[in-house]
Amino acid sequence: MPNGFRRFFLGPVFVLAIAIDASAVADEGMWPFNAPPLKQLKEKYQFEPTPQWLDHLQKASVRFNSGGSGSFVSANGLVITNHHVAADCLQKFGDEQHNYLRDGFYAKTQSEEKKCVDLELNVLESIEDVTARVNSAVKSGMSSDAAAGARRNAIAQIEKESKEKTGLRSDVVTLYQGGAYHLYRYKRYDDVRLVFATEQQIAFYGGDPDNFEYPRFDLDICIFRVYENGQPAKIDNFLKWNSRGPSNVELTFVSGSPGKTDRQLTLDELADTRDRYLPYVLRMFNRREVLELSYSARSFGNARKARDDLFGDQNNRKRYDGYLAGLLDPQTWSALTAREQKLRDAIARDPKLRSTTAAYDRIKNAQAEIAKNAPLYNYLEQERPITIGYRGPRALSGNLFKYARLLIRAVDERAKPNGERIPEFRDSARESLELELFSTEPIYDDYEILRLTDSLTDFASQFAANDPLVQKVLAGKSPHARAVELVTGTKLKDVAVRKDIYGKDAAALQAFHDPMIDLARLVDGPARDARKRYDAQEEIKKQAYSEIAKAHFAIEGASSYPDATFTLRLSYGTVRGYEQDGKQIPPFTDFAGLYQRSVEHDNKSPFDLPQRWIDKKANLNLATHFNFVSDADIIGGNSGSPVVNKANEFVGIIFDGNIQSLVLDCIFTDKQARAVSVDSAAIIEALRKVYGASGLADELESAK
Amino acid sequence: MPNGFRRFFLGPVFVLAIAIDASAVADEGMWPFNAPPLKQLKEKYQFEPTPQWLDHLQKASVRFNSGGSGSFVSANGLVITNHHVAADCLQKFGDEQHNYLRDGFYAKTQSEEKKCVDLELNVLESIEDVTARVNSAVKSGMSSDAAAGARRNAIAQIEKESKEKTGLRSDVVTLYQGGAYHLYRYKRYDDVRLVFATEQQIAFYGGDPDNFEYPRFDLDICIFRVYENGQPAKIDNFLKWNSRGPSNVELTFVSGSPGKTDRQLTLDELADTRDRYLPYVLRMFNRREVLELSYSARSFGNARKARDDLFGDQNNRKRYDGYLAGLLDPQTWSALTAREQKLRDAIARDPKLRSTTAAYDRIKNAQAEIAKNAPLYNYLEQERPITIGYRGPRALSGNLFKYARLLIRAVDERAKPNGERIPEFRDSARESLELELFSTEPIYDDYEILRLTDSLTDFASQFAANDPLVQKVLAGKSPHARAVELVTGTKLKDVAVRKDIYGKDAAALQAFHDPMIDLARLVDGPARDARKRYDAQEEIKKQAYSEIAKAHFAIEGASSYPDATFTLRLSYGTVRGYEQDGKQIPPFTDFAGLYQRSVEHDNKSPFDLPQRWIDKKANLNLATHFNFVSDADIIGGNSGSPVVNKANEFVGIIFDGNIQSLVLDCIFTDKQARAVSVDSAAIIEALRKVYGASGLADELESAK
Repeated sequence: MPNGFRRFFLGPVFVLAIAIDASAVADEGMWPFNAPPLKQLKEKYQFEPTPQWLDHLQKASVRFNSGGSGSFVSANGLVITNHHVAADCLQKFGDEQHNYLRDGFYAKTQSEEKKCVDLELNVLESIEDVTARVNSAVKSGMSSDAAAGARRNAIAQIEKESKEKTGLRSDVVTLYQGGAYHLYRYKRYDDVRLVFATEQQIAFYGGDPDNFEYPRFDLDICIFRVYENGQPAKIDNFLKWNSRGPSNVELTFVSGSPGKTDRQLTLDELADTRDRYLPYVLRMFNRREVLELSYSARSFGNARKARDDLFGDQNNRKRYDGYLAGLLDPQTWSALTAREQKLRDAIARDPKLRSTTAAYDRIKNAQAEIAKNAPLYNYLEQERPITIGYRGPRALSGNLFKYARLLIRAVDERAKPNGERIPEFRDSARESLELELFSTEPIYDDYEILRLTDSLTDFASQFAANDPLVQKVLAGKSPHARAVELVTGTKLKDVAVRKDIYGKDAAALQAFHDPMIDLARLVDGPARDARKRYDAQEEIKKQAYSEIAKAHFAIEGASSYPDATFTLRLSYGTVRGYEQDGKQIPPFTDFAGLYQRSVEHDNKSPFDLPQRWIDKKANLNLATHFNFVSDADIIGGNSGSPVVNKANEFVGIIFDGNIQSLVLDCIFTDKQARAVSVDSAAIIEALRKVYGASGLADELESAK
Repeated sequence: MPNGFRRFFLGPVFVLAIAIDASAVADEGMWPFNAPPLKQLKEKYQFEPTPQWLDHLQKASVRFNSGGSGSFVSANGLVITNHHVAADCLQKFGDEQHNYLRDGFYAKTQSEEKKCVDLELNVLESIEDVTARVNSAVKSGMSSDAAAGARRNAIAQIEKESKEKTGLRSDVVTLYQGGAYHLYRYKRYDDVRLVFATEQQIAFYGGDPDNFEYPRFDLDICIFRVYENGQPAKIDNFLKWNSRGPSNVELTFVSGSPGKTDRQLTLDELADTRDRYLPYVLRMFNRREVLELSYSARSFGNARKARDDLFGDQNNRKRYDGYLAGLLDPQTWSALTAREQKLRDAIARDPKLRSTTAAYDRIKNAQAEIAKNAPLYNYLEQERPITIGYRGPRALSGNLFKYARLLIRAVDERAKPNGERIPEFRDSARESLELELFSTEPIYDDYEILRLTDSLTDFASQFAANDPLVQKVLAGKSPHARAVELVTGTKLKDVAVRKDIYGKDAAALQAFHDPMIDLARLVDGPARDARKRYDAQEEIKKQAYSEIAKAHFAIEGASSYPDATFTLRLSYGTVRGYEQDGKQIPPFTDFAGLYQRSVEHDNKSPFDLPQRWIDKKANLNLATHFNFVSDADIIGGNSGSPVVNKANEFVGIIFDGNIQSLVLDCIFTDKQARAVSVDSAAIIEALRKVYGASGLADELESAK
């Protein structure tokens, strides 16, 4: 699930556990390690994990700050994750002579292991319930603002004390939308070295056509080693390697850090998502994909320039297609309706909670306001001002406008007290702001002009060509002529110029002129207004959701799992296939299927095999299981999570969900939704027979 | 300009000749041969074509009933046109062993020349003004219905008399939206045989990326021979071949049959086209292109199935992109505004015409009603019920639904008197209806399911999932499940079943059930209602446009050219390059550029060369001009038109317009809009050096 994980989370909220299928009890839930689903496991699988079993799996699990999961798989600090989780690292190693992302990597000896910049791994050491202490900071009679402030202070105090006392990274995690506060303590590893990576071609074999699909043939893995004091770290809790992989219908467990789920959304908000928001973003991704594909088709150079954008847009298009298909499935919708009705009935029955009913209407009204404001907000401002792959607001796409806006706002906001600034300009965000602003990422005039022309055209189409703001933005020119003028006229391509502008005060900036800066100023008023309106409604929703969640918590207590919060969770599921269009999809693929797929496509991209795989075919046991599916409850952020069996042995690694799993954002279903993993058997077979990495394979298998 | 020509025309309307550029007098106009632009040619070019010159060019010009143009180029009946105009023919020749469309064709001897089915060529013999006779049929005091009927009768009578008297095909053409009626008499050729075709790969070299672009490298030609009484026809008026091609800034002429222009549209309608209609169709084409590309990427088999649809959708996407870009250019819009203002001022000044002003408001109001009705109309009914590549209404895409609707409507409409039926079910259309209905075109379940799933999803997104009609159509299922049920459940894949249903009477049909037939019945009421509303507003517009055109004609007379009507027209223009993004685009390309382009793209599709072109490279004079551009006024239907010099020699053949020419639909501009031609020099060089077709080349060059 490349890009499946987003760095920006909404608040977590308590959810009801209702499976869509009536079949037995479903394998639902992303359970905190201090509240594991012992009852469910015992009832359905007659399996009772011991505290030691849980503690071992918890401490063998690793969170990647780059947005994924992994696990320890040797006593000497080997950590396995997905190739796509490590992609950023692999890219950064590259130079003129080396392209590790494309070609893969293997360090035969420890001295060849390559240290990563920026990579931090966290291992969860302990969880402590600090709800009482956080809540005790709030005194009766406090305004809601004062209460929030008091809570924030209490949390900061707890984190500080814990850090000082233990030396561990200490985060207070808000669970159940404020129903509970838990202190998570992590051991940090920041000396992480690359040991092994496959070629991207086999990690992402099948490219966009196979992304989110099954059957699948991807060796999406990458292996690191953590060091302490310059030596391989000694790891007590690592997963023993099982070289056979799992069997059909075997019970397996997934231990990782799912990023974010939205299983608390009201039907009204989900209807708006289904009928307005998803069609809107899909139109946008379709438009971009066509633009980037037709540009890419014109030359190899173009294809290179548009590659990352195209990859992201295709991935998102497919992902939202899948989500929409889920919401349009009446079975899913019935389950969502039943979930909400059950809660609303319980609320209505309880006189102390009855007032909460109004929260549903507040959400509905706020969502209607958000919908009304959406065109202006989306075209001029957009949701996430700084995030990976952000390309400016929809009307003004491109890196150059993005820089212009960040610069004028940085100067404007700097003059305000820290607390009054919009979040991406607060002191705490300065580092990532500057990283973004002073990036040396290359800027291609032709590609900037293409994107800006298209987005200005889109803007004129959305609001009509004679809309006053459209006319001001176009300044009497056609979209193309205006884009050419802006892109060739601005000086913002030069990092030094951006640094210089960033250093100006408000007065100096006002006297400064650059076509792109002037344009950013021109739209800043309406853009900020649209954002204010959006934020105001989001705040109303947040409070209403919190009220509903608290009512829910009052009714059910912590007998269910909280929404995902990029903290460690335990999921479980059965290895099993599913039915699609009357056809049974088997749970396993094998190496023979990989070669067959390549033949069926004349070995043409994206179904071409790395040369090594062609050369070494005869060495391989082609019946080796390659990928498999299970019905475990996962989501973006689970990428790289270990799959273990009841003996706590490593039998596979999660790397994707199928297209039917994309609805797991808002509700669990196990009818067709499946988590997709690489089989541990395939990893060992490939390491030995394709990559000649027997030293590494020996280390992995040594503790069998 | 593949697909650039449409078979369905609106009525022709008088237009004002206003060039966008102020530079000298522009080379504007598609002039009837009985009203050539003598004054303009004399003033700007000091060239005075004689009546003989014009008569020769007229009779050397050929109209293809498949929707394009061509010309005689030898005394023995050789006719040259575009490969893409002949594509349908070439396809029909194919069998298991032969794919002439892909591989090309050359008949070394006359006995090898292959006779085409269905191809009819028309040569314009004479034009006669019959306006007075047509108008005299209308007596004062007649209702407008009666007047229209009287005119229709008069026209039918004139055509019949002429046919009987001369034996020639005789068509009365309505020009200037009823300002004039001219009788066109054609000699018909229906024994047309294929002599030579290039490979599609070189005819459409560069595929979608190069479509509508320049510089260009396409040998888009195909050569036929017409026969009479089983012998090659003896042709008096054929174009002498000029083997050098044209020079830079040379005056050239284009003689062909442009299909349809809309240069009479009011600003209100154009604003709706720009702000609503074009964005709407572009969203649709983007959506389809992504669907077809992602499906195609999954297997070669898929790519084959989706190939034609993808080609059409990419072509349309690019075409409408170009048109929208033109309408968003303020220079174009100013020219459109000036054109309308000039006419409205003249109308306002003339007391007899002043009442016509109200016609503008009627168009504006009707267009607003059309816009309001558009979602229902587009999703349930769509504009063109039977046309090439029609794939059903937007909500219910696919061949199977299309058949179901045609069947139930054919039975329903048959019960009505002929004149009361909707047009595609009148007796005159029976043949094409049955051709469509009983087509043996293969139907692929998976592809039908894909398209139907996507269009049902689109339908639910457009009207919201809980819309009553959406719910009825989906019948409690997800779009995918419903599509699977319909496609696998219907019997309409079987031509015999369609024939059987077609033969039923209304009562028998009512008793008959099939999932797709039942669905077609379910939506037929709302679909027909939407169509009625649309047709009513179109009729209001038609009458209002006719009123404006008559006022215009009263003011200006026939001193300008009428809108295109797929009748023979003379355009003229200078061979010249243009400026794009500050870069000068030269007027000519050459063979060297073709090979260079192939190298730049590693000879990968769509930039791969046919093997023959690789093998024969050393034979070629690489400096030979390949394609060239001129500023002549052309549009779809002009494909295949000969380009001649002042000596009436064949110097090239039109095959495309650049992207900036797409706005020529509604207004002429010569700033960047260019007609793109194959150079006569390239044709001879390729015939001799690549195809070894020296016999054919000798015949072409023999009359030099």
